[in-house]
Amino acid sequence: MPQCSATTERAITAGELAEYLAGELDGSADIPLRGLATLAQAGPADVAFVADPQRYRDALEATAAGCVLVPRSGTGALRTPVRAWIAVDDPYRAYGQASRWFGAGRREVSPGVDPSARVHPDARIAADAEVGPGVVIGARCRIGAGVVIGANSVLGARVELGEGSYLHPRVSLLDDVKVGRRAIIHSGAVLGADGFGFASTPDATWEKIEQLGDVRVGDDVEIGANSTIDRGALESTRIGNGVKIDNLVHVAHNVQIGDHTAIAGCVGIAGSARIGAHCAIGGGVGILGHLAIADRVTLHAMTLVTRSIDRPGEYASGVPHQEARLWNRMLARLRRLARTRGA
Amino acid sequence: MPQCSATTERAITAGELAEYLAGELDGSADIPLRGLATLAQAGPADVAFVADPQRYRDALEATAAGCVLVPRSGTGALRTPVRAWIAVDDPYRAYGQASRWFGAGRREVSPGVDPSARVHPDARIAADAEVGPGVVIGARCRIGAGVVIGANSVLGARVELGEGSYLHPRVSLLDDVKVGRRAIIHSGAVLGADGFGFASTPDATWEKIEQLGDVRVGDDVEIGANSTIDRGALESTRIGNGVKIDNLVHVAHNVQIGDHTAIAGCVGIAGSARIGAHCAIGGGVGILGHLAIADRVTLHAMTLVTRSIDRPGEYASGVPHQEARLWNRMLARLRRLARTRGA
Amino acid sequence: MPQCSATTERAITAGELAEYLAGELDGSADIPLRGLATLAQAGPADVAFVADPQRYRDALEATAAGCVLVPRSGTGALRTPVRAWIAVDDPYRAYGQASRWFGAGRREVSPGVDPSARVHPDARIAADAEVGPGVVIGARCRIGAGVVIGANSVLGARVELGEGSYLHPRVSLLDDVKVGRRAIIHSGAVLGADGFGFASTPDATWEKIEQLGDVRVGDDVEIGANSTIDRGALESTRIGNGVKIDNLVHVAHNVQIGDHTAIAGCVGIAGSARIGAHCAIGGGVGILGHLAIADRVTLHAMTLVTRSIDRPGEYASGVPHQEARLWNRMLARLRRLARTRGA
Repeated sequence: MPQCSATTERAITAGELAEYLAGELDGSADIPLRGLATLAQAGPADVAFVADPQRYRDALEATAAGCVLVPRSGTGALRTPVRAWIAVDDPYRAYGQASRWFGAGRREVSPGVDPSARVHPDARIAADAEVGPGVVIGARCRIGAGVVIGANSVLGARVELGEGSYLHPRVSLLDDVKVGRRAIIHSGAVLGADGFGFASTPDATWEKIEQLGDVRVGDDVEIGANSTIDRGALESTRIGNGVKIDNLVHVAHNVQIGDHTAIAGCVGIAGSARIGAHCAIGGGVGILGHLAIADRVTLHAMTLVTRSIDRPGEYASGVPHQEARLWNRMLARLRRLARTRGA
Repeated sequence: MPQCSATTERAITAGELAEYLAGELDGSADIPLRGLATLAQAGPADVAFVADPQRYRDALEATAAGCVLVPRSGTGALRTPVRAWIAVDDPYRAYGQASRWFGAGRREVSPGVDPSARVHPDARIAADAEVGPGVVIGARCRIGAGVVIGANSVLGARVELGEGSYLHPRVSLLDDVKVGRRAIIHSGAVLGADGFGFASTPDATWEKIEQLGDVRVGDDVEIGANSTIDRGALESTRIGNGVKIDNLVHVAHNVQIGDHTAIAGCVGIAGSARIGAHCAIGGGVGILGHLAIADRVTLHAMTLVTRSIDRPGEYASGVPHQEARLWNRMLARLRRLARTRGA
Repeated sequence: MPQCSATTERAITAGELAEYLAGELDGSADIPLRGLATLAQAGPADVAFVADPQRYRDALEATAAGCVLVPRSGTGALRTPVRAWIAVDDPYRAYGQASRWFGAGRREVSPGVDPSARVHPDARIAADAEVGPGVVIGARCRIGAGVVIGANSVLGARVELGEGSYLHPRVSLLDDVKVGRRAIIHSGAVLGADGFGFASTPDATWEKIEQLGDVRVGDDVEIGANSTIDRGALESTRIGNGVKIDNLVHVAHNVQIGDHTAIAGCVGIAGSARIGAHCAIGGGVGILGHLAIADRVTLHAMTLVTRSIDRPGEYASGVPHQEARLWNRMLARLRRLARTRGA
């Protein structure tokens, strides 16, 4: 089974954790820590963290955590039963590092191909990869070392999966999809479906343009549940290294996404758009096709990008909610304004 | 097979139906009724309903239905071949009750585990549950009485499914997801994928925060096709009792949804948002993270919620369509207005 | 395996291609052509195309393509190594036709039912259909000639699939879904999930309305990855002939979509909406329920349709992105305007 233990039975002492996080310990080095929790929920064997001790002073004073990660700027004098403090440069990032230590058991690999998987004889699968029950793998696939393929996933022909990549259950990687190393692809994601390409005919019907390109995904990419990344029409749809994509995101054919860009849920990106590196794309954003977005662009939630963006910066067009009555009045004013001659 | 008959071969008489609906019969008590239909499509063995007889007077006069559910306020004199009228407090709700009578056969259970299912030996499955073909069930799952698990669904480890819950084909319930009683989860839904959590590094790359929480779903919840509900980062993502979620909805990590809230299609809810009870959330709404929405809030379609909402009421920010030319003029006016000094 | 070769090993000469496209050849008729590519990527055995030779003059002069499809209006004098030009009425459409020639091998059928598929004994499957591994087919299904059903797809009871239809892996067609001929349904799509129908009770909870209708899909329809089309409450949800639907589109119960309408990604259509024929619906559009849209309506991206549209034409309400600072000012002005008395 690809799914393993979600909590760890391993313990780490506060002293070992401080060393692992390159932090500074204040308090008892030998407390055994078995889990990670919020300030409110943590118990004496848990680590918690706080990024802004002033703001969360009440929660800090009330916490029962055995150990808390704090910024180096310190926490001032606090009356708590916390027995160990670890001061770090960035508590949120240190919490992330700790989360990987405590969560490490979750992605354990049980090498081997489940007997109910259907693997094409021409596929090449690393000896230490894990292929779950009900998985289907097509001809000439190449599955790297330490890869996990979750139950009932389907790989088409000539799919490549780099070492250490992890497919959760029920993922589709269709023909010719190539995914780099250490990818995490969540349940229900579909890579390599046909792009939406049709030519109109003189009688206003649609003729399919066969989608002959592929999908190429870099290293260290994460793709969310039920997201879809279409194959290119003639070229590749390309997802750069370190890109993080949330759930229910639609990436159309020929799109290029630069390295380390993060895309929140429910975003739609139309065909042939080129997104820069290190962008942050908010939830529900829509991006039209055949345009380019520069590096380091931030798009607020539900923005509609209608033309290229040449300069880094923050862009928006989402409308904050109002009481419905006020909102209707705003719309009425705007309509009136638009009808005024010469305004 | 989990899929059964969509129409019933059982018949109910108009008299029996009036009793079942606690309504008042006017006409022949012994007409046998075999189906439910719209006024326009109903035949002499069908029940139809009308909530507003004045508004639908023409349809009422033309219907061939054998029996019609009407409000107690009555229908006035009508010339129709309808042979039985049942007057009820709320015809739409009575139609719903009738729909459950006529649709009852659809969710019949054929107890047993299909031989092609792969069930971990440590899983505990009620004797009268039905596990469909190709289903995969992980270690230490607990499947309640009368549960149906549709074909090719995948359950991770330690999943709990309360009695009478129904999973349609191809659902993912990943590690540690807990679902209450009488849930209906539609095809393609994914519960328990990792939340979208990353810490940024000084060189502007992303480090994964392991998502160590879980998902807890109350009783009588319905979750639509291809919707996704992520596990919490450290805590639980919680869906209250009686919550109804439509298709292609994204619920991020740590979100809390109060009892009996209904969420229409294509909604996205960002991390750690807390939604009240008895809310009605329109299609395509976006809700930012780390905010709270009171009980009994109604959000119109495509609203963007950017800050907490403390009071019940109706909120909106969706813009109704205009002719494109007029809309462009409205936008131009708004831009000009924003550039005017001192306006 | 349903997935076959994505590129062809067949060759066609420039002369044969000109004949196939009903175009006019200028240059060497005997060049063997093996693939289709963009001007920038094409080599001497590839066909490329250009719709606007003036605009792409630089790319045309630099291309290494063996053959280029051009409009009949001609290309003027160019210095390129292109050895064959084919003049056609509509180069984009001719490229589409060529794409089908070169992509033909991709949809080859390997007749037969995979031994790991679970087919109900009452299902009737054409002898030359292909049923992939892990597929589940319910009672009384009717599968037409030349149909392909991709791996791990699930068909409920009484599903009908017309001849030549192609289901990619992991598709759900639930009870009573009827699909016409030559459909292409992409991975993760769900047809026939319950519509979102509930009656409210006096104590503000929700009672399910059983969804007793079905889904009827015409001929030559394409449905994108992870899209969902719900069954009708009492009637049919109907998708007309030649309709093209992109990824992550939500079509609610009782919706009717007219022939040859195209719907881009991330669109949501609420219950009982009636969409005309030959409409073009942009990405992220939301359409409210119980309204009607005329034939030949174009909706720009992220438009919210709130009332019926009686006349053909272009409609919009999506807001183009702005610099965030400017956008905030625009919103503030609009709010102020709405609060002004008498404005």
